[in-house]
Amino acid sequence: MVSLVQPQPIIYVLEPFGGSARLHNPMLPHVFHDDAAVTRGDGVFEAILLLGGEPTNLDRHAARFASSAARLGLPAPYLGQWREVTAAAAQAWHAQHGEKHPAARCTWTYTRGRESTGVPSAWVTVGAEPREHARARAEGARALTGPRGYQVDTGDKAAPWLTTGAKTLNYAANMAALRHAKQNGFDDVIFVDTETGRVLEATTSTVIVVKKGRRLRTPRPGQDILSGTSQQALFEYAGQRGYKCKVKDLYVDDLLSAESVWLVSSVRRGVRVTAVNEVELPAPKNAAEIAALIDAALAD
Amino acid sequence: MVSLVQPQPIIYVLEPFGGSARLHNPMLPHVFHDDAAVTRGDGVFEAILLLGGEPTNLDRHAARFASSAARLGLPAPYLGQWREVTAAAAQAWHAQHGEKHPAARCTWTYTRGRESTGVPSAWVTVGAEPREHARARAEGARALTGPRGYQVDTGDKAAPWLTTGAKTLNYAANMAALRHAKQNGFDDVIFVDTETGRVLEATTSTVIVVKKGRRLRTPRPGQDILSGTSQQALFEYAGQRGYKCKVKDLYVDDLLSAESVWLVSSVRRGVRVTAVNEVELPAPKNAAEIAALIDAALAD
Repeated sequence: MVSLVQPQPIIYVLEPFGGSARLHNPMLPHVFHDDAAVTRGDGVFEAILLLGGEPTNLDRHAARFASSAARLGLPAPYLGQWREVTAAAAQAWHAQHGEKHPAARCTWTYTRGRESTGVPSAWVTVGAEPREHARARAEGARALTGPRGYQVDTGDKAAPWLTTGAKTLNYAANMAALRHAKQNGFDDVIFVDTETGRVLEATTSTVIVVKKGRRLRTPRPGQDILSGTSQQALFEYAGQRGYKCKVKDLYVDDLLSAESVWLVSSVRRGVRVTAVNEVELPAPKNAAEIAALIDAALAD
Repeated sequence: MVSLVQPQPIIYVLEPFGGSARLHNPMLPHVFHDDAAVTRGDGVFEAILLLGGEPTNLDRHAARFASSAARLGLPAPYLGQWREVTAAAAQAWHAQHGEKHPAARCTWTYTRGRESTGVPSAWVTVGAEPREHARARAEGARALTGPRGYQVDTGDKAAPWLTTGAKTLNYAANMAALRHAKQNGFDDVIFVDTETGRVLEATTSTVIVVKKGRRLRTPRPGQDILSGTSQQALFEYAGQRGYKCKVKDLYVDDLLSAESVWLVSSVRRGVRVTAVNEVELPAPKNAAEIAALIDAALAD
């Protein structure tokens, strides 16, 4: 009989400023009601794929994490500490659950902390990959396109305090888009800029199209597109293997005319888009090759 | 000797769906790492002023809370339960701290809950009003104007899942604006639409201008301006007392030419804007009258 219950996660709570870390009982809560993460979504995070007890693509995650923290004016995280704790948690997970769960999800969370203390909160969790990920990789995702709901001001109109390049905890709008997709028989939303028609990103992943067998394209990251650690890893890895990888504006027509369209993110990895709105996107001959390429790039 | 330590808050954790409520020890955390509030800011809240052990403006808060929950696709909150718990917590606060803290802050928080359970999380806290509120009421606030950083798409371009009318936990961008203001010698930011120049709202309050002694104006709430419960209470109360209250587009020039400009919110109540960017706004003769009017409206 297959157990439907996922194993409990491993949680380490970190003291900020390079202090100690402690293993936290996952059956008990550790976040206070007045933590800025809870009251304002005022914090940053990274989701990191663990494979066989080892974190993947860690340098890019660490760099984006530091950059997100800086954009939010949080004290610079002691990345050495985050890496050490991650290694310990990853190994502990692997020792306990590696056989059944060789792929796991590690999350770094760093918040402005409690209103009553002013000390940032920081923790690392390692847990099983959500079940629906494997299904998405196997079956693909039907994607709606839609407006993000807002236009990010750039250039002279940009707010000097803009946080949109940071990977913050403010995902309520994206989660609403995702629920809307599911209520309408789809699995995800690819956001499109309403003024220019440019493809932006999906709710929690980067859009990549494949053309002519070995050409990979992704929209240029910027204030309305989060810079994707997985896309970067893929482009580096694929570029070294003879694929032509380019950052380039994409439009919905480019999705429809591509050989294949992929949603790429750290833990879910590569998911092929099997339909864009009402248009089916049949699998190309090289679908397995591209999926393997993404997996290999992320495992590299 | 004046104690600098604020008293511990009173926390009730509610079972959703009209279940029971329990008093929670405020020295212990109660939010789990995988609560959607923490991981996605996926929840809604209200901040309610308590005066002398009684909640104020509760019908409007309850209505907006229900509306926010509906916009996020959360199960409808059992408002009777929220009200009962609020009354109990408010009375407990008043019995313990009413003499030193006759004004208190009550917060309602309602989230999509833990990823591992799928059951919404719900709690009510009552605590001391932040110290800086009294200072802001006494000294006023110097406000920067600035872009919100994004334009909310409305009309045909609006996303069908748009959450911007909901009071969600996604305030990281507003908090960044507030930090920017403070780093530059200001106390708050009044957001202005970059395309039209319309005044929107401040980071956590509604903008109201007073002209010709007894005319009150506020921008029309909509997808880029949260409907303000305090502004509504003020307009109703003031309207019954001969003030002319109108919802009307406002521009920065209207702020500069007004007799006075106010930032109105539930717990901080009325704070007069003493400067807009580099322009000082001296107190008008009726400043005390307007401050008292706001207080009376919120206490009504």
